[in-house]
Parts: sequence; C-alpha cells; structure tokens
Amino acid sequence: MSKYIIVGGVAGGATAAARLRRLDETAEIILFERGEDISFANCGLPYYVGDVIAERGDLLLQTPEKFRGMYNVDVRVCSEVTRVDTENRTVEVRSADGVYTENYDALLLSPGAKPLRPPIPGINHPRIATLRSVQDADRIRSLVGTGGSVVVVGGGFIGVELAENLRERGLSVTLVEAMPHILPIFDTDMISLLEDELRRHGVELALGDGVAGFEEQEDGGICVRLSSGRTVHGDFVALAIGVRPDTAFLDGSGIALGERGHILVNEYMQTNIPHVYAVGDAVLTRSAQTGKATALPLAGPANRQARLAADRMAGEARAYRGVVGTAALKVFGLTAAATGQNERALQSAGMVYGKDYRFTVIFPRHHVAYYPGAKELALKLIFRLSDGVVLGAQAIGAEGVDKRIDVLASAIGRSLTVADLEEFELSYAPPYSAAKDPVNMAGYAAENILLGRSIPLLPHELSAELAAGARLIDVRPPEEYHAGEIAGAQRIPLPRLRERLHEFDPQVPIVVCCKMGLRGYLAEQILRAHGFSVKNMVGGYTYMKMQHEERN
Amino acid sequence: MSKYIIVGGVAGGATAAARLRRLDETAEIILFERGEDISFANCGLPYYVGDVIAERGDLLLQTPEKFRGMYNVDVRVCSEVTRVDTENRTVEVRSADGVYTENYDALLLSPGAKPLRPPIPGINHPRIATLRSVQDADRIRSLVGTGGSVVVVGGGFIGVELAENLRERGLSVTLVEAMPHILPIFDTDMISLLEDELRRHGVELALGDGVAGFEEQEDGGICVRLSSGRTVHGDFVALAIGVRPDTAFLDGSGIALGERGHILVNEYMQTNIPHVYAVGDAVLTRSAQTGKATALPLAGPANRQARLAADRMAGEARAYRGVVGTAALKVFGLTAAATGQNERALQSAGMVYGKDYRFTVIFPRHHVAYYPGAKELALKLIFRLSDGVVLGAQAIGAEGVDKRIDVLASAIGRSLTVADLEEFELSYAPPYSAAKDPVNMAGYAAENILLGRSIPLLPHELSAELAAGARLIDVRPPEEYHAGEIAGAQRIPLPRLRERLHEFDPQVPIVVCCKMGLRGYLAEQILRAHGFSVKNMVGGYTYMKMQHEERN
Repeated sequence: MSKYIIVGGVAGGATAAARLRRLDETAEIILFERGEDISFANCGLPYYVGDVIAERGDLLLQTPEKFRGMYNVDVRVCSEVTRVDTENRTVEVRSADGVYTENYDALLLSPGAKPLRPPIPGINHPRIATLRSVQDADRIRSLVGTGGSVVVVGGGFIGVELAENLRERGLSVTLVEAMPHILPIFDTDMISLLEDELRRHGVELALGDGVAGFEEQEDGGICVRLSSGRTVHGDFVALAIGVRPDTAFLDGSGIALGERGHILVNEYMQTNIPHVYAVGDAVLTRSAQTGKATALPLAGPANRQARLAADRMAGEARAYRGVVGTAALKVFGLTAAATGQNERALQSAGMVYGKDYRFTVIFPRHHVAYYPGAKELALKLIFRLSDGVVLGAQAIGAEGVDKRIDVLASAIGRSLTVADLEEFELSYAPPYSAAKDPVNMAGYAAENILLGRSIPLLPHELSAELAAGARLIDVRPPEEYHAGEIAGAQRIPLPRLRERLHEFDPQVPIVVCCKMGLRGYLAEQILRAHGFSVKNMVGGYTYMKMQHEERN
Repeated sequence: MSKYIIVGGVAGGATAAARLRRLDETAEIILFERGEDISFANCGLPYYVGDVIAERGDLLLQTPEKFRGMYNVDVRVCSEVTRVDTENRTVEVRSADGVYTENYDALLLSPGAKPLRPPIPGINHPRIATLRSVQDADRIRSLVGTGGSVVVVGGGFIGVELAENLRERGLSVTLVEAMPHILPIFDTDMISLLEDELRRHGVELALGDGVAGFEEQEDGGICVRLSSGRTVHGDFVALAIGVRPDTAFLDGSGIALGERGHILVNEYMQTNIPHVYAVGDAVLTRSAQTGKATALPLAGPANRQARLAADRMAGEARAYRGVVGTAALKVFGLTAAATGQNERALQSAGMVYGKDYRFTVIFPRHHVAYYPGAKELALKLIFRLSDGVVLGAQAIGAEGVDKRIDVLASAIGRSLTVADLEEFELSYAPPYSAAKDPVNMAGYAAENILLGRSIPLLPHELSAELAAGARLIDVRPPEEYHAGEIAGAQRIPLPRLRERLHEFDPQVPIVVCCKMGLRGYLAEQILRAHGFSVKNMVGGYTYMKMQHEERN
C-alpha cells in the first residue's frame, strides 16, 4: 500500500488527492493544508470582496469532512509542513497539537504562491491588506465597511478585479501601477480599451508610478507616496503587486528551486528528487510554444498539472505539454482575454515585428449586426511570418470574447496556422456569430498579410511614411466621418476611388485608412492593381484611436 | 481580361464576386440574381417574421448600388439565368427587358436551394407560406397580422425558429414533424431538452405525424390533416419541410447533378465541366470527417466554398476540406449547437455503439457554480473507440453552449482526440468558465471510458442488466433525492459506500447511478478496486430522465 503526502489543499493539492484516490483505492493519502480551508475558490475572492458572491460559504467548495467522505483522504487543515527530509522521506508538520513527522512513499508539493510584500516603508500597516485566503477576503470586507476610499496597488488580474469590485461597492478607487500600463498579458496597443473602461467607471489610474512609501494619516487613512512624488490617499490599501512561490519550507530539502524560489520540475511534474512531485503556482513550468521555463500562477494549469502528477505517482505517465497562457477577466462591462504569446513576450525573446512576426487587428461584431444587441470586439491576432503559425491572440469587448479566445487557444495549443483558422467551421445562427466568425475573419486578414496581399502599416509607423512623402487617403464613406478626422488624410470614399485614379502620381506612395481596415484593404487592392505603391493602416482609424497618449 | 459570371447573389454568389474582385481588379464580373435583393440576411428571416429584427432594411446587407460601388461588379437583379450552354460558354438570362445571352470565361453557380412543396392535396392554398426570401418573410408577416394561430410544418432549423418567433408574437403555434423528433442534427437522447423547451413556451408539438392534406376552413383558416387522422388548425400554415437545390435551369447543360439535383463538385468546387464552378446550398459537398458526399445548406460553408472557388477561378488553389457540419440555434431560453457526426449518422454509416464508438454526457455549469447566474448545460461527446478521435458533439443549455461547440468543432476539424480536449487551456475567470472547462471535463470523462476506467451503461440498457440480476445503487447524497426517485435503486450515499462494502455479494454485478455521472464514477472506482463487477450510468439520473417516452 502506497502512502502519499500532499502539501497544500487548494486547487492543485485537492485535485491531485482526488485523482490519486480514483487511481488507487487502497493508498493512504494525507493532505496537509496550512490554512483553515481546502479547495476554496481563490478566483472568487475578489467577487466576495465585491459582494457579487454574497455567501461566504459558496467559496468553500469542499469541506475537509466532505472531501474525506468522498475520497477517503486524511485531510489535516491548520497543519503546516515546515520541513521536508527527502533522505528519510518524511515531512515535519506543525499544528495546534504540536510538531510531528510523517513519512511518505511519494510526496506532492502544491504550496502555491503568496502575495509579495516588499520592504517599502510603512508596508506593515494593519490597513494594508493582501488577498490570498478567504480570511484575507473577510479582512478586506471589514475594511470596506469602515471607509469610503481605497488605493489598490498593482494592476495585475487581482488588482484590477479588486478595483472593479471595490468600485462597484461604491468606494473611491485609485489603482496604482508601476509599469506604464496595467495587465501585461495585453500589449500596450490593446490596453487602452481596458484602462478607459476603468476610468469610465470612476476608477482613477496612477500608471507608471511605483509606491515609495505608506504613511498613516491623522484620520486613520493611508497616504501612499508614489515614486513621482505624487501622493494618493485611501482609507485602506489593497496590495496586489504579484506573488512569489511559498517554498521557504523547502530550504535544505535538496529540492531544486529556481532563482525566484519556484520549484523546478520536468514534464512529469517531478522535481530533481525521486518520489517528489510539484504542481501549481509554486512551480516553474514550460511554455508549450517555446519550451522556455515560465511561471504562470493560474488555476487551469494547476489542475492539469495535478492530474498528470497524480497519474505519474500512481504509475501512469503522460508528459505535460506546458502552458499556453490563456487567461480572461471581466472589467466592468468588458471581457478581456488572451492566449499564447503577446508582442512583449515575442520581442523579449528576440523576435522582430515585420521580420519574424506580424499581427492583424479586427473589430467584428460578436454576432451579425442585424440581430439586436451586436457588440463590437477588438481582436488582435499575432502570427509567425515564416509559416503562419498563430503565436498569440488578445480580445476585448462586451460579448463573445472568451469564446473566440478559447477557439484560438485550442489552435495555439496545437501549433495551427492562420490558414487553419479560416477553415474552422464554427457554430452560426444570428444570435451567436456570423457566417464568417471573427476567428475566420482574423484568419483571412492574417493570411492577406502573410501572403503579401496586404502590406500593413501601424499607427506609429505612419509619421515616417508621411515624412517620406506618402499620401494618406481616408476611404471611409462620409457617414463615418463623425467618428473623427484622420489627420492629414485626403478623403476619397472607396466607391469613388476607381474614377479618381488619375489624381494619383505613380511616384508617390500611398497609405489608405478606413474605419477598421476592411475598406482600406479593398482600396489597397484597387490601387496596387493599378501599379501604385500602397499600404493599409492595420485596424483602420479605430485602432489608430486606441493608441492615444497616456493621459495621467 | 477575364469575364466571370456568377449565378445567384446571396451568400455564396456575393462572397465569390467580392473575392474575385479583390484578386483581379481588371476582370469583368457580372452577378445575376433572380430576386430583388442580393446578399440579404437569409438566416435573419425568421427573426424578421418574429419582429426581433424590426427593420426590414436591416436584412439587406448590400444593395446592388453599394456592391457595385465597392466591388465594381455588374449586379443584375430580377435577372434569372434560365439556361447554361457550356459548349459555347454562355448563359441565357431572362429579365424585364427580355431574354438575352451573356458569354463567360468562367462561371460560378450559387443558385441556392428552394423550399420543398410536395404534391400534398391543398398545398397550393394561398395561406400556406414558405420562407426563402425577404418577400416571403413580408408575406408571413402579413399573415401574422390576420390570424391568431399557425401550423408550422417541419421541425428543422427554419421550422423551429419560425415556431419560436411566431409564438413570441403571441400566436398559437402547432409544430408538425413527420419524424419522431425535431432537429435531426441532435440525437434522440438530447432532443427532449428542446422539445420540452418548446412545450414550456406553449408550442404544441405534433411529432411522428406527417401531413396528409390541407383543407380550407369556413373561417378562412386551414385544417391540416395528419397521417394519423388527427387534424390541427391554423389561420395560416408555414411550410418548412426542407429544401432542394434550385438547379432545374441546368437541365441539358451537361453539368453533372446528383440524384436529388445537387451540383457535383470536386475539392476545388469545380463541376465536371471546365470553367464551371459551384458553391453553397445547391452543391453536394463532402464530409471533412468521412469524405462522403453530403448536402449541408448552411451559410458558413457556403461562404468558405465561395472564397475557395474564387481563388481557384483567379488561379490560386487550395482544396476544400469538406464540411464538419457545425450548427447552432436558439430555442426560446436555450441555445442548442452541434458539430461533427451524431449517433444517427454514425449508425447509418455502419458504426456500432460499444464496438466502434461510445459517448459521454456531462452536465457542467457554464461557469463556476459559486459565481451568480451559473447555468447547467448538457454536453454529449461522441468518440471513436479505436483511437479516441472526437467524432461529434451536441450541447444544449442556457449559456456558454456555442462556445464549447466551437472549441469542439475546431478539434473535430483537425481530427483531434479526447486526450487533446483535456489539454486545451481555455480562458478562465469565474464569470466565464471553471478551472476545468466543460470541454476539458468532457475529455476526461471520455478518456475514462476509452481507457476502460469507467464502464458506461445507457438508460435503455439498464433493464436488461437488472433482469440479469444486477443490483442498482443510487449513490446520490440525500439532498439530491428530491429530484426524483431512481426506480429500483438502493440508496447508499457515496460517503457511506466504503463502510458498507460487506453488504455486497461479489457474484452480483452492480450498476451505480448518481445525479450526473461523477459520483457514480467515484463509486465505480471504489467498487471495482474491491473486486466487484460494476457499471456506471452515463450522465446519471439527469440523463436518464431526459429519455422519457413520447408524450404526444
């Protein structure tokens, strides 16, 4: 009979325990959890803070008792594993009853990650809260009751979700982010849609400004001093500047850790020590696209890894393909989702726009425009120029966003190309999509670029083009002028273009621009067929407008 | 300069014309459309009837003038191509101005399909309407104004969408279907969810009963006599019993047609005659899964085919992979969608359940249960036993249905397996999904069956099992008993199972059943580990309940 010990009872640990039991009815399985709860809904915590989830009990997906009853797992909560002795295969456990050791045949580590609390002056003030556990959420809820304003520090997923939820509860919210933009999973060109949505709902953004210190104010509130010298004030502070693996207890165990404390594992979720496995937010996993080591603290991969680790522990083997990095979040009325690599990741891996990769941006409706309630979404699709493989996608809009990213995530997970996207036969009826789904459209637009049928120009490339003498043509129909003027452009609506070709000088390069890129593409074909040198503004005026200067 | 002629200006024809122009700015392109409109929203017609789409103009996606302006295509509406002379490469056209011929270098046929009107007595009554054009929809709208009741004949997509829309307008609606069930794209086991939804909204269903004749009543209404002898009455009748390709004009052209009049094409959408192409509802295309000839009158494939045909006509070539058969529709509060092959198709191709294929049915929430508004969906996943390739999927529920089917459609289009589904990394935040998306869950459940970890029992197989002496165990927790009693089952909640193993006789086979299949799977593992012979009811009691007898 095997004896399995699992450290950590949230996503990864609980999943692994359940899977181990299903594979091995006779094994002894002990699950240690430092906190009070196992398998609670971490991802729901911001919504509990926001009272969207009103019942605390709804967050507790499993009680130790229920879990024990279903899976015959010896669940020990409030039990912290403080040391691992891989020589003797034992763990040291500290609980209310004292300290004891427990031996194992195989050990699975799923300790998770804990919020960063860097040594900033004043950071230990009691009204500066982080969010990891249900108890943390209780704490923030109690702080909400005492104040009318909050400073959320950190513009990642949790920070943004907290900002939204606290704002929805009526607080004045300032969101501080040290980087120039929030949510680095999105490229800078897309992020204004989300930053604008936050501002539109009254969240004040302080971007590109780190925290220099926290000071208590006379009224009991907190003054947050920023690097720029600016100060922002809140009755309390929610700190969400990232996490680090909770692996200090592995010191001296011989289990190899990465630079930042992540547990190193192979494709079977095995550490460097025999019979010791690790999964979840605490491990350094691999990118399914590049094979590079990466840390990705998300629930989906944690669950997948836990299942594979349990399979391997119980004798069966399948290799983990690594993470694609798919994620979604709600920002007030918008959904934002992304999958694969963004430009930031590609560029930091040395890939160059125009040489190694390009992208398209389209703005389709989430279903046919003629059916009531159609909402526009922005969809950016990044692809490799050498072979058309889809590298990444980002989408933001009110409806149908997660659906398109899910289809694209499945494509990226299998290294499919833009031509594959064209061929996807997706479900269509007027309430759901169009005969050509946005995923198909993105595939078509990308292929036009890939095959050289369309030569894309980015907004930041326009000024150089104009300086070099290019002529900018706005081919929108007059009924679209109200959206704004395309500076420096001559207006020739597309249906008039063919009859005005004589006005163009074959020596002068042309840049065409329309509302969203499609009419521009048509104009491009007409002009090129007549021998002109022409480029099309990617995403048209809509995309151009998204690239506004920082307004803080 | 090439001269292209396109016959038919709706989905396929208009798409091909636009694509041809983008590929060849100098070509002469003539588009003939018999009706008044090109590129109108056929799929929106039922919603215009239902006043969901209130503006008639919204259906007219393109006017001949706008299309001409954008694409420089010679659009000729109210112009019917009555004959094709493939020897001399001409078409004969009948318009208000008379009859003339037009020659072509290449010809693309996209004539579509027209509603069936079989020679049933009385079928030519003026209050029996079909729905193909905007004018047809106008006609039905005018009939709605005159009456309070309608008989919809035909339970396919258009019939069901019409039934819904007419019911939403307050009419008494009877839906007549000759087959035992509506919407053959769904298997019989799933369809009760949709039939119940129709009934719940007051649509009366007359299933398994064909139409024997129509008779005018004294009040001007119509009595529909059914094969069973039963009669149903309506102020008017909407006839939607299917379509046939509108290809009579090809008689004598030498263009090869199938038995039922479909144009035969190869993977480049070429007919047997050089320079003649065909796309859309009028062609016999191929299944991407089986390679077999199939007719699939859907807008998505028509568009795809049109683009490929235009590419080929203009010199570039890519082969059409064939259709997967993805479709969706709204039925009041539910969305129903399907992709790939259903059991009916598999069985008619000679495949046998349990030998060649199996399926799983799961009932996940569309997002985590703890986030408000979670809705259950039913998801059936069919897979091949030899290699785990996903063959088909069907889903029905209030939310998130089309999303899951789209991901599965992309998987089926690339012959992926249930193991691939497990690995899809799909976007997750509480408002959108769960850490394990329903697609992942379906993959896991299917793999358990595929690998023999779970031995599934179908509801209709249960009685034989019981007759052979099997013992049926209801492992639901007591709080789920209110949903209904599992007839003949002994109740042993899962957490009590391990302590009651001594009550079981190793000689007696066991069938376990829970609410939806998951606890049953856990019970199955426990019992099998202890040496018992055990099967698990697929989809649990929830699926069992869906298999009710016909109630008409």
